[in-house]
Amino acid sequence: MAAPRAFVFDAYGTLFDVHSVVEAGRAITADPQGLSALWRQKQIEYTWLRALMGRYEDFWAVTEAALRFAVRRLGLTAGEDEIRALMEAYLSLRTFPEVTAALARLGGAPLGMLSNGSPRMLEAAVRSSGLVGVFQHVLSVDAVGTYKPSPEVYALGPRAFGLPAADILFVSSNAWDVAGAKAFGFQVCWCNRFGAEMDSLGVLPDYEVERLDRIPERLAR
Amino acid sequence: MAAPRAFVFDAYGTLFDVHSVVEAGRAITADPQGLSALWRQKQIEYTWLRALMGRYEDFWAVTEAALRFAVRRLGLTAGEDEIRALMEAYLSLRTFPEVTAALARLGGAPLGMLSNGSPRMLEAAVRSSGLVGVFQHVLSVDAVGTYKPSPEVYALGPRAFGLPAADILFVSSNAWDVAGAKAFGFQVCWCNRFGAEMDSLGVLPDYEVERLDRIPERLAR
Repeated sequence: MAAPRAFVFDAYGTLFDVHSVVEAGRAITADPQGLSALWRQKQIEYTWLRALMGRYEDFWAVTEAALRFAVRRLGLTAGEDEIRALMEAYLSLRTFPEVTAALARLGGAPLGMLSNGSPRMLEAAVRSSGLVGVFQHVLSVDAVGTYKPSPEVYALGPRAFGLPAADILFVSSNAWDVAGAKAFGFQVCWCNRFGAEMDSLGVLPDYEVERLDRIPERLAR
Repeated sequence: MAAPRAFVFDAYGTLFDVHSVVEAGRAITADPQGLSALWRQKQIEYTWLRALMGRYEDFWAVTEAALRFAVRRLGLTAGEDEIRALMEAYLSLRTFPEVTAALARLGGAPLGMLSNGSPRMLEAAVRSSGLVGVFQHVLSVDAVGTYKPSPEVYALGPRAFGLPAADILFVSSNAWDVAGAKAFGFQVCWCNRFGAEMDSLGVLPDYEVERLDRIPERLAR
């Protein structure tokens, strides 16, 4: 496989730890992990469902709808101030520990981000995590009004970089995103941080790593 | 709201109890409920993902892929005979207890089924559950090569019955299916058997019942 000429990263779960919203959850529940997990699951489900229904709303709206569902289903009580505080945690997510150094090491090639996040959410996450200037392109699904794993979304990458998909390495921690990107035509690296099983969707990643700083050695193998 | 001129039912989870495959699971795990729940979750996820990726495979193939994923992820061991036995449970699902009588009571109007299931799976389920002749139309997504909640799927209903969507009552136990059907334009009844929370997808059912035999009284209210 030809050496990639650009690297494109998924954001949530790959660069940014979405479960870092757990802290904010302590204000309304003794089980903030449970809230965080259900919130995340419904957030992703709602992107798939809205995309299939042809009823796009941006990721901020979907994320808030998923949070309100999770609060109701878990029988929690949350005032509007608490909802707002939980939502705002999404504007200052932490990166995983190795991310900044790993990106610096790969930065000889152009880097991009391709995410379900709305432009405002991505801009805030880049700023708060000290990644300003690292990415040539921060690409949001909002430009095409649908969600991953629609091929329309992945097509934003080759278009922005002016490169064929086969010359770009797409990196994601989400197995279903890996499948979508591979089906689209990218070279794909699965950053499998927590020893997950690959989904059975008829496509497999080209590479698998545990952390982003393992990518250079994995490509060299 | 005008009285419905036809009734269209979702199959799995609405007429047929998919967790009745639990029995077959005992051969490979001490926690067949856990296997059944993960299998069902991945089965549905894979329909959404394949639809979005534009990589339709029929529900039999998706169901088997989901089963193999669940077996791997739960660390179970299953030979090909055991996989086959679990899959074949899908060809002889039980209906929920009230279903046959409830359909008989509604049968003054034409009845249909509209399901993700492949034609072969639906035919087998109708036969094994004694529902032969009950439905004027047994409609499979296979005719359009995508999955719920795509509007293309729901459009099969009005086309088969020659009625506008607004004159048909669509009945499903799955909250996301309820949302998809309502967004499409059906009258919708959510059969909420287990006290679930409605999903936050911007649309709500017109009616809610706990069991299918409550539909006539709910419509009359």
